[in-house]
Amino acid sequence: MTGFTPSLENLIDRFASLPSVGRKSAQRLAFHVLDMDDTQAENFIEAIRNARKSVHRCSICCNFTDNDICSICSSKERDKSTICVVEDPRDIVAFEKTHEYSGLYHVLHGVISPINDISPEDICIKELISRLGEGNVKEVIMATNPTVEGEATAMYISKLIKPLGVKVSRLAYGIPVGADLEFADEFTLIRAIEGRKDI
Amino acid sequence: MTGFTPSLENLIDRFASLPSVGRKSAQRLAFHVLDMDDTQAENFIEAIRNARKSVHRCSICCNFTDNDICSICSSKERDKSTICVVEDPRDIVAFEKTHEYSGLYHVLHGVISPINDISPEDICIKELISRLGEGNVKEVIMATNPTVEGEATAMYISKLIKPLGVKVSRLAYGIPVGADLEFADEFTLIRAIEGRKDI
Repeated sequence: MTGFTPSLENLIDRFASLPSVGRKSAQRLAFHVLDMDDTQAENFIEAIRNARKSVHRCSICCNFTDNDICSICSSKERDKSTICVVEDPRDIVAFEKTHEYSGLYHVLHGVISPINDISPEDICIKELISRLGEGNVKEVIMATNPTVEGEATAMYISKLIKPLGVKVSRLAYGIPVGADLEFADEFTLIRAIEGRKDI
Repeated sequence: MTGFTPSLENLIDRFASLPSVGRKSAQRLAFHVLDMDDTQAENFIEAIRNARKSVHRCSICCNFTDNDICSICSSKERDKSTICVVEDPRDIVAFEKTHEYSGLYHVLHGVISPINDISPEDICIKELISRLGEGNVKEVIMATNPTVEGEATAMYISKLIKPLGVKVSRLAYGIPVGADLEFADEFTLIRAIEGRKDI
């Protein structure tokens, strides 16, 4: 015998194929699944089925939603003149936790990345542009990640938007709150000096 | 909005309830499941269902198997006079990797642990004792973990077995191969001195 019984080995392989799950973790997860009672196991399977069936992209902002239009786009309390453009639905949750931003969002579902064969057509840029056609939006905040691809995507989109007469801004770069200057990288420090403000 | 859409939030909760899966990992796993194509998702669900349906305990050694009797117990090439007693099916895989042990196994599925309300009747001790009744077994190797509970379980079982005239042994304690003596704990060092051998 070199491993576990085939059906268990298969379950371990499936778990091991998930992102950042190693072989040992996959074993632990598979053993846990065997230990579940029937209700727990069926609830787990049902959660997978239900999420895959129900979750789709909001027809306005492309965020994940169970409905046709997400709760943010359909809210009457949000400021409809501002759109914050993010790479991933998880970024929206991060912004919402601040309770400071009351505008709308737009999820690109990725960034332009020639090396990974992701072109502008592969992410939700045309959906963003079509939202600007209605004339209600005054400002678009580019909140892609501060990486090479995130930066390039922000530049690409801003060039498309500016001719439409909509203001485009970018999140501020600088020292993270609570960080130690000693350990800040030089690029962050350069941006922090460039972006300094009068006090 | 404070989180994700309900069906996605539910899936994240299910993943987060698995052992050693934190909130961020659960999000990553749930997003990955949404990204799967239909075949992958159904294969994943089928692997869970199939493992839960097919995997049960070998009627001889209590190891996990898809059949009535596991591949080790049914093998004609194993030495049927020796039984190695382990806590968990994963321990068998570890022993099998050495290619050195050719006897049989017995899986206890736990250790006696009064603090966790696990008594001798809750683990597969009676199945082990009944195997010894046939008289073929000459030696039982206690290979429970070197923890307080593992040790106590080994002692408990050895007291049950000795009156049956079967030899009982325990895995050797000592310095792990490749370890640095400087970092060995004192209990391990004491056992290593006690167990020293002539060279």
